Amino acid sequence: MSKSNLQLVHECNTFPYYQDNPAAYTAHLKNYHIFKVQGCSSNLGYITNEVVSRFDWPKESWVVDSADQTVTLVAGSTPEARSAAVAQTLALAVKQDRFEVLRGWRDEMYPVYGPAGEFLLEMERCASPLFGIVSYGIHVTCYVEDATGLRLWVPRRSKTKQTYPGMLDNTVAGGMSTGEKPFECFVREAMEEASLPEDIVRANATSVGCVSYTYVRDSRAGGETGLVQPEVEYVYDVKLAADVIPKPNDSEVEEFCLFTVDETKKALANGEFKPNCAVVLIDFFIRHGIITPENEKDFLEIITKIHRRLEFPTASHAAN
Amino acid sequence: MSKSNLQLVHECNTFPYYQDNPAAYTAHLKNYHIFKVQGCSSNLGYITNEVVSRFDWPKESWVVDSADQTVTLVAGSTPEARSAAVAQTLALAVKQDRFEVLRGWRDEMYPVYGPAGEFLLEMERCASPLFGIVSYGIHVTCYVEDATGLRLWVPRRSKTKQTYPGMLDNTVAGGMSTGEKPFECFVREAMEEASLPEDIVRANATSVGCVSYTYVRDSRAGGETGLVQPEVEYVYDVKLAADVIPKPNDSEVEEFCLFTVDETKKALANGEFKPNCAVVLIDFFIRHGIITPENEKDFLEIITKIHRRLEFPTASHAAN
Repeated sequence: MSKSNLQLVHECNTFPYYQDNPAAYTAHLKNYHIFKVQGCSSNLGYITNEVVSRFDWPKESWVVDSADQTVTLVAGSTPEARSAAVAQTLALAVKQDRFEVLRGWRDEMYPVYGPAGEFLLEMERCASPLFGIVSYGIHVTCYVEDATGLRLWVPRRSKTKQTYPGMLDNTVAGGMSTGEKPFECFVREAMEEASLPEDIVRANATSVGCVSYTYVRDSRAGGETGLVQPEVEYVYDVKLAADVIPKPNDSEVEEFCLFTVDETKKALANGEFKPNCAVVLIDFFIRHGIITPENEKDFLEIITKIHRRLEFPTASHAAN
Repeated sequence: MSKSNLQLVHECNTFPYYQDNPAAYTAHLKNYHIFKVQGCSSNLGYITNEVVSRFDWPKESWVVDSADQTVTLVAGSTPEARSAAVAQTLALAVKQDRFEVLRGWRDEMYPVYGPAGEFLLEMERCASPLFGIVSYGIHVTCYVEDATGLRLWVPRRSKTKQTYPGMLDNTVAGGMSTGEKPFECFVREAMEEASLPEDIVRANATSVGCVSYTYVRDSRAGGETGLVQPEVEYVYDVKLAADVIPKPNDSEVEEFCLFTVDETKKALANGEFKPNCAVVLIDFFIRHGIITPENEKDFLEIITKIHRRLEFPTASHAAN
């Protein structure tokens, strides 16, 4: 059955809103423990109760309060010491093979920030959905526009990729590790994933905002389901000349195809795109006058839901 | 003192958020009665307690519940009948000169929608902040882009205008009356406010999304302060050729000037723009790569706050 744009948004921004139903929201939160760091008043993530019960939480590093439903990191007073304590806990879980998601170890560190944008700690990327922390990335739509109209460069993910195998993707996308800036991440990924050289990227790219949403992992993501994944994706448009062709440069992408707007809409409605890539394309279509208030009855709801104010502090990626 | 972009956003999106401080938010809501319509479960607006006490609420049309803090329109079961009851209540208040904002009678009707997008009633535009209902409009940025860079067409509001006299504005902006569609409103206002002919508008305009926020009226708005004004503004960009010059066509605009990006930023920081026009320009700068994650530390907070999920049902303006 064909999916509406709003359905696609809901597949990506799955976590409920307080304002829709305060009682149901409060009841839903009972399914999670809140991830906290000693000395910081903010909530930093949602850990499902099942994950809480499956972890071994070394007593010298963690306080698990079942009444308050909090898991507080009490070890360390510096980012280095906190990160080391988390790494130790994760290493034990890997050794015990407690979580499927930890089998996808990436050797990439994701940061966690406090309410004033202060860097609190970092942890292995594949562990971030276990803690439900905010993650950051970049998503890029490369397109060509000529007399025949607008066409988009759409890659298909490798069938052997661990997450969302075989699904359609945004032209370039990637996660931002600790310390990385959005544009820098974009330039790196453009070469790694699409063989696009830095000079072409810099000459043709426009920073156009971000999308944010709170995803709840389903089976397509691989590993445990129901994990909370609040995300911010910085968004870029790149208008390419017709003779610039993105090419796979690693094993992550199978091929790039040039889709018309109608082909892209059809693939969206068929559910062929990875959920957060669908959201980025919907945002692209809104900014380019393809989805309008007159042709999309859910226009307002879509726009507010793909720019969700997250439940947790978010980072500043500005140069100091 | 120079205002940051986030401060400008906060001047427009003033109403607090539950998630920032649930207790303070709940306490703040005690300052309002909720506007409701019999038979509709949704909240439709916030009426300040002072406005509640100053209105005469004819008993045959209204139930004021001081314990629940609700004002419920009980008269009528059709939009026509409900609107007539509201009109009668307003006519009495005008006769008694109870509210300053009602001195600015516009003879324009603003609609109120229920949770399924159903049209519930309409009321005179200048009364809408008394009931705190969602209002809809269009805001347009006309710009020219050439070898010297991007410049924006910025009008100055007439010094005799009732609201925000003498302040800077978006090139074209206007409120949507009952039944009007966004693009249709834009075409009408482009001629009325900037003498831009329909063919030029249609050939050069792009629908690029919307901004939404909950404004609390300050003295610059004229009339009673503290009134709640949740708004959705559909946003359009119009890239104009250098020889197309917007010209005032009514008494609302004093003059149009072509501002560089730096001149616009300076006027924003000086607080010279009407608050919601500042928000539209910030959105324009974000979409055009002028405000980026690397040069704006509040990038994420700004984007989520100018796409606020409103506390009330919103309309669909799609063609049926």
